[in-house]
Amino acid sequence: MTGFRDLGWARPDIDREARLGLPEVVYAPGKEPAQIAAVVSSLLAANAGPVLATRVEPGTAQAVLAAVPDGVHEPRAKLLHWRAAAPMAFTVAIVAAGTSDGPVAAEAAAVARAIGLTVDEIHDVGVAGVHRLLAVRDRIAAADAVVCIAGMEGALPSVVAGLVAAPVIAVPTSVGYGAAFDGVTALLAMLSSCAAGVTVVNIDSGFAAAMAAHRIARSRA
Amino acid sequence: MTGFRDLGWARPDIDREARLGLPEVVYAPGKEPAQIAAVVSSLLAANAGPVLATRVEPGTAQAVLAAVPDGVHEPRAKLLHWRAAAPMAFTVAIVAAGTSDGPVAAEAAAVARAIGLTVDEIHDVGVAGVHRLLAVRDRIAAADAVVCIAGMEGALPSVVAGLVAAPVIAVPTSVGYGAAFDGVTALLAMLSSCAAGVTVVNIDSGFAAAMAAHRIARSRA
Amino acid sequence: MTGFRDLGWARPDIDREARLGLPEVVYAPGKEPAQIAAVVSSLLAANAGPVLATRVEPGTAQAVLAAVPDGVHEPRAKLLHWRAAAPMAFTVAIVAAGTSDGPVAAEAAAVARAIGLTVDEIHDVGVAGVHRLLAVRDRIAAADAVVCIAGMEGALPSVVAGLVAAPVIAVPTSVGYGAAFDGVTALLAMLSSCAAGVTVVNIDSGFAAAMAAHRIARSRA
Amino acid sequence: MTGFRDLGWARPDIDREARLGLPEVVYAPGKEPAQIAAVVSSLLAANAGPVLATRVEPGTAQAVLAAVPDGVHEPRAKLLHWRAAAPMAFTVAIVAAGTSDGPVAAEAAAVARAIGLTVDEIHDVGVAGVHRLLAVRDRIAAADAVVCIAGMEGALPSVVAGLVAAPVIAVPTSVGYGAAFDGVTALLAMLSSCAAGVTVVNIDSGFAAAMAAHRIARSRA
Amino acid sequence: MTGFRDLGWARPDIDREARLGLPEVVYAPGKEPAQIAAVVSSLLAANAGPVLATRVEPGTAQAVLAAVPDGVHEPRAKLLHWRAAAPMAFTVAIVAAGTSDGPVAAEAAAVARAIGLTVDEIHDVGVAGVHRLLAVRDRIAAADAVVCIAGMEGALPSVVAGLVAAPVIAVPTSVGYGAAFDGVTALLAMLSSCAAGVTVVNIDSGFAAAMAAHRIARSRA
Amino acid sequence: MTGFRDLGWARPDIDREARLGLPEVVYAPGKEPAQIAAVVSSLLAANAGPVLATRVEPGTAQAVLAAVPDGVHEPRAKLLHWRAAAPMAFTVAIVAAGTSDGPVAAEAAAVARAIGLTVDEIHDVGVAGVHRLLAVRDRIAAADAVVCIAGMEGALPSVVAGLVAAPVIAVPTSVGYGAAFDGVTALLAMLSSCAAGVTVVNIDSGFAAAMAAHRIARSRA
Amino acid sequence: MTGFRDLGWARPDIDREARLGLPEVVYAPGKEPAQIAAVVSSLLAANAGPVLATRVEPGTAQAVLAAVPDGVHEPRAKLLHWRAAAPMAFTVAIVAAGTSDGPVAAEAAAVARAIGLTVDEIHDVGVAGVHRLLAVRDRIAAADAVVCIAGMEGALPSVVAGLVAAPVIAVPTSVGYGAAFDGVTALLAMLSSCAAGVTVVNIDSGFAAAMAAHRIARSRA
Amino acid sequence: MTGFRDLGWARPDIDREARLGLPEVVYAPGKEPAQIAAVVSSLLAANAGPVLATRVEPGTAQAVLAAVPDGVHEPRAKLLHWRAAAPMAFTVAIVAAGTSDGPVAAEAAAVARAIGLTVDEIHDVGVAGVHRLLAVRDRIAAADAVVCIAGMEGALPSVVAGLVAAPVIAVPTSVGYGAAFDGVTALLAMLSSCAAGVTVVNIDSGFAAAMAAHRIARSRA
Repeated sequence: MTGFRDLGWARPDIDREARLGLPEVVYAPGKEPAQIAAVVSSLLAANAGPVLATRVEPGTAQAVLAAVPDGVHEPRAKLLHWRAAAPMAFTVAIVAAGTSDGPVAAEAAAVARAIGLTVDEIHDVGVAGVHRLLAVRDRIAAADAVVCIAGMEGALPSVVAGLVAAPVIAVPTSVGYGAAFDGVTALLAMLSSCAAGVTVVNIDSGFAAAMAAHRIARSRA
Repeated sequence: MTGFRDLGWARPDIDREARLGLPEVVYAPGKEPAQIAAVVSSLLAANAGPVLATRVEPGTAQAVLAAVPDGVHEPRAKLLHWRAAAPMAFTVAIVAAGTSDGPVAAEAAAVARAIGLTVDEIHDVGVAGVHRLLAVRDRIAAADAVVCIAGMEGALPSVVAGLVAAPVIAVPTSVGYGAAFDGVTALLAMLSSCAAGVTVVNIDSGFAAAMAAHRIARSRA
Repeated sequence: MTGFRDLGWARPDIDREARLGLPEVVYAPGKEPAQIAAVVSSLLAANAGPVLATRVEPGTAQAVLAAVPDGVHEPRAKLLHWRAAAPMAFTVAIVAAGTSDGPVAAEAAAVARAIGLTVDEIHDVGVAGVHRLLAVRDRIAAADAVVCIAGMEGALPSVVAGLVAAPVIAVPTSVGYGAAFDGVTALLAMLSSCAAGVTVVNIDSGFAAAMAAHRIARSRA
Repeated sequence: MTGFRDLGWARPDIDREARLGLPEVVYAPGKEPAQIAAVVSSLLAANAGPVLATRVEPGTAQAVLAAVPDGVHEPRAKLLHWRAAAPMAFTVAIVAAGTSDGPVAAEAAAVARAIGLTVDEIHDVGVAGVHRLLAVRDRIAAADAVVCIAGMEGALPSVVAGLVAAPVIAVPTSVGYGAAFDGVTALLAMLSSCAAGVTVVNIDSGFAAAMAAHRIARSRA
Repeated sequence: MTGFRDLGWARPDIDREARLGLPEVVYAPGKEPAQIAAVVSSLLAANAGPVLATRVEPGTAQAVLAAVPDGVHEPRAKLLHWRAAAPMAFTVAIVAAGTSDGPVAAEAAAVARAIGLTVDEIHDVGVAGVHRLLAVRDRIAAADAVVCIAGMEGALPSVVAGLVAAPVIAVPTSVGYGAAFDGVTALLAMLSSCAAGVTVVNIDSGFAAAMAAHRIARSRA
Repeated sequence: MTGFRDLGWARPDIDREARLGLPEVVYAPGKEPAQIAAVVSSLLAANAGPVLATRVEPGTAQAVLAAVPDGVHEPRAKLLHWRAAAPMAFTVAIVAAGTSDGPVAAEAAAVARAIGLTVDEIHDVGVAGVHRLLAVRDRIAAADAVVCIAGMEGALPSVVAGLVAAPVIAVPTSVGYGAAFDGVTALLAMLSSCAAGVTVVNIDSGFAAAMAAHRIARSRA
Repeated sequence: MTGFRDLGWARPDIDREARLGLPEVVYAPGKEPAQIAAVVSSLLAANAGPVLATRVEPGTAQAVLAAVPDGVHEPRAKLLHWRAAAPMAFTVAIVAAGTSDGPVAAEAAAVARAIGLTVDEIHDVGVAGVHRLLAVRDRIAAADAVVCIAGMEGALPSVVAGLVAAPVIAVPTSVGYGAAFDGVTALLAMLSSCAAGVTVVNIDSGFAAAMAAHRIARSRA
Repeated sequence: MTGFRDLGWARPDIDREARLGLPEVVYAPGKEPAQIAAVVSSLLAANAGPVLATRVEPGTAQAVLAAVPDGVHEPRAKLLHWRAAAPMAFTVAIVAAGTSDGPVAAEAAAVARAIGLTVDEIHDVGVAGVHRLLAVRDRIAAADAVVCIAGMEGALPSVVAGLVAAPVIAVPTSVGYGAAFDGVTALLAMLSSCAAGVTVVNIDSGFAAAMAAHRIARSRA
């Protein structure tokens, strides 16, 4: 028993659910629909939990769904998923600075729900109008973990992490122009946060933030 | 009641323990020993929990300890702390790739212990001899959270996060030369990890990793 | 009439006071004390307003003061000045995020006072404890211009510019480590601010911020 | 009274006019026309001053105008605005280095006029033919504030700030190629200006420059 | 005898086969089909070994093949070649981290076969499921040289070079997003590898890796 | 007499021919055909020498030529010019490393001829087959100035400047991929050349190199 | 049998000789002399081959040699080694561009000899005097592998790899200033080489180049 | 006759004077005084022209002069030279923006004089007081070539090249702080200059500028 299926051109890691609590997730860019469908099918066959494909463009999504039925397509999140997990008693607050950060928040929320987290979405609470953030402070404080999404100067997690005690996972987005450098400035700002204990994931990766929250949720069990 | 003490040149945030579960931590660089001592004293007076000062050089540490008694100096971690917290039932594995990463691991471990976490330190399990890592897989899997410390190419968290389900907090270090760019390469590699759900803190910040682990520990309570 | 004094190795711009309202300011690095003294003397002789030398190390300051009497040395600000201007009815709030930003705030305040501005210094109001900032909101709103000084993630000007209507001049500082990149991250964050109308000067340049405030003050006359 | 309107997916900051003298401005990229229209309508309803949307592409502009009547579209500036402010007695000179900087100058001018500033536009006075700049020196000196727009080496603000005493707000543009790095070189050059008191905004942000000038204008009232 | 053919606009290096064991290889981008055909024809006429053109887009490939018969087009590898070399007794293992790295692996494999190497392709053995890599350790160890292909954090060569003694040529790929910086992160990680003796070629250059392997193979003869 | 024509939106520098020996050159990107035509007409009317517009796309070129007759379009060089200068007794060798550098060489050659230089074009003498370069050493040594064009590692000027005594103007090109960074690597390599006295212009700027050669040619008169 | 020795603070990989043909090599920076001595002793005890410590400063070297006798110190190479390997019939040419590259060449040569390679050192053959390189072409062509060392523009490997068929391992050095960026320019230039099949190691890493050559030598056996 | 002297550890290029009109120049950093002396002696013996060593620290200079008599030490320029060339009828204007640029100007001037150029030094004509530059316009226009030296925003060459027709060689300096990035900003600004025909050399390289001027001077003969 090797722990993977050998398709020649791919080796789906069918052992991952046993190790990590979730099956492998398929990253769609650079893969043909038939490749995605084959890997998804392998994973569905060999595991019991939810199977996801991320960053799926609309045309690809239709082709994959035609080949692997019973999947759900969430176009704003660019997510395909099959066999969503039962909800755990763990709430993640997904807090976004601006409406332009919406697609990243959508990915974080859709992935989080598909893997069994309860989501509380809070939008448009950027720091230039900090009263908007203070108004939802109790909602954020009630969550088990917080995903903080912001582009431009990426200041939101610093303020949030100073307000609540929960784990804060910061997601920089590519929103902005010029000196925002496609999210690099927000990324560096979040890593340099003066608020203690903020952690950071890759630019625009709502997916990574949801998975990190899942690790926290699962570690409680 | 303002939630801070106004010293004129500083405003210790004496409300932070109530909000976040830990008092404010003093970042020593750029501050005079007398300034550190004054802030530490304010924090000790206004809170009940552990008070820490990080990145404290030896001479400064002696001067501060002389002014504020009953502190503990951990020179390898460059940490001063007073009134260490009682241990929680939460173990953080601190896993370092090489012996040169030792000072960062020392900071992570010393801070973690001072704020009440139980620590399991595992050293020198870099990926160029991956059997060393596989040999300690069960110890790592037994932890409630994992702090992964590596310089150079920063590959350790990717392998670890593929082996265990716990939250993985990656700390890039400035170990290496040339294309390692003082930790930037390890930082970017950790952010780009193909293992899902890895989170990252600033270069050489064992402190940030320990504080992030504390947020996870506290969120369970 | 050429508008400058030709010293061979230097051409002090003695016409600048007439054009800009302030004599030329001497940037000390790379200059010998005797050179600084000669230029300062030229400027004192040819103008009526305050003469300043910035970034002056202690030994150099003593040598210059010995050669050009009646000067004032402000060591924390690394400033030498002669013939300080009479105060204008214009208050600049100098707001700093952390105590480690103190030297930059000191330069901004000392230069501002020397060229005739009234200064209100507010320290240690970083965004990780945003209640400290809200507590001084009225003081900041009462100023004619605001200089906002922050290192690390540089978030302070975004919050301040959302609270008050006055001109906000942001100064990134080199406080921080790793991903703070010696002030570059704060610089980029300030330039990418989601708060409208923030302007930015060079890293650690309390001097530039004070001079920018002076342009605003003078434009009112 | 919370100071914002909660649309679920957005929280227009209807309190901003009271705090800052101008309503919130809508940044169009990444928003649907219906979203822009809804936020604009909220802002028009809750405030008395001008409402603006920036970086609006032509098709989007038509859709928004159809939904929210009485708006003005300035296509070269990519600006939509409603209820332009009455002109203040404050002139901003908008000085551009080359004709290729025209779109950025257009945004600065259109925003400035919409929020009540008087504009004097001066084009094509780049430093490679410095006599062109010297010929308009008196016009620039007559302004209450100067917006200096340049790409490539971004030298214009250094020369202008040496000629006039008014506040100088520098806008780097993405004009140029190769080592101009899409405006980064001009940005860094402006931040490093040898002329004292120059402030800088983000690349291509005529909008930010106009808003900064508005802060100066309003601070006089 | 000059060692090149002078076509005016090009100078095919017809002497290269004698010096290096292989004729010059044509890099297609920026060249017209007729130019490629002319250079290929010159090289075929003046040498005896295989002639290759790399990075050839489909339309260009058809046009060149029409002009120079008997060529082979490998579209996934974007390779054209004529007169493939007889296989040497030298096996190169081409080991790729993910299925998205497929096109780079395809180029490496196609070029290697065309110039006479025997290829063993191993796909999808990324380090997040390290058991997949350990399962093929003996196959890799049996090769005379190893080409290791990975994007994102580029960790694969560090693990492989710790498992086998053969020469390891690392190829970073542009797979990934955000902090992966189009392959730069993988490139820097590979150069910073803690495993001794890894060498690195340019981003996405399966071609360069195959040619480097050929130098090793030929040096044995 | 101001030395420029004031078109409102542009200020053609009609005095430049008198100062520099050549009229102003029009940089086409970001300008409308009508704008280009108007500036060109101004320059033709006010000067006696050649008038050029660079980086002109084909459609724009046709529109401008329709409005301003008697111009010449060199499409490979993206150049429009009117009233080419009489040839001077000054030969510039334009030496290019690879055939992919052709468009940059074409711009350099076309501009040089239009402003009166004699051109000797030498193509495809990259350093990986250095015998090709040595074969044309005498032709290069016979020139009054050398323009050296190379992408990728940009090594050509170092070798050429070690072979001949003439002025060497290096032009990095954006040819290459990955670590070539769109010409930045070649640019930095040329600036770091171990051969003494190499000068460098912007990436892909055949135009700048020709103009620099013209300055040398004219300085002899 | 775990394949490593567990010292608590370190895990020497005593299995590496069996896997890779050479024991683990100790990287000295950041380690205490006693730590280096302990690891070296473990490696000497558990293996039969040569044991090396690299980047050892003089004082550290003396302390380690005192603790672990029979070692050899090569100060120019900053190398300590014990039990040098018997020479193999494999010659590596170490070719350096300038005399300032000497320390890197010294490390490459000393490591190569200690692990059993025969070395032919060739110095000061930079491309600005290419006749010096052509004069030693036959010596280089006679080698089984070539290590090419250069700083500044890093052009040497491109020329060498066009002259000889052997494997070429390029080592960029930090020699140079300004745009040489401490070896980054040479690194990028070598990765972008127009000569096919060049491989590259980290900046200043003569060690890595020697180890890469050893992999090639050993693969022949 | 090989064209170089083989010292084993160095190969002085004694043929360079014949090829380029000047002997090889010794770059001192990283070389021992005895090495410098040996190379200088070789060059003096095998050539007739001036021999130079650059970037020589004071102690090294004394040691070299003791070994090779009749040399001249110019400490501000860090230059050693022997057998200065007879002056040519060619004047180079060395124009520096600020007094802090003095050491770079000193190197340019000292090298230029040693190799036979006539020098006109003009200091402190930075663009923030452009009247100072206009006052010396005729002196600059009278030169055969212009070396323009500036740090910070590096704007001087753009203005100068718009005023005079002569060749302009721009030298960026590392003067400045923060966003000046040790001369990188000035370098990029000079490469992006809107003035046609400016050429650029490496940061702080007064040497390279003088050698480039020498190529121009010699090409006239």
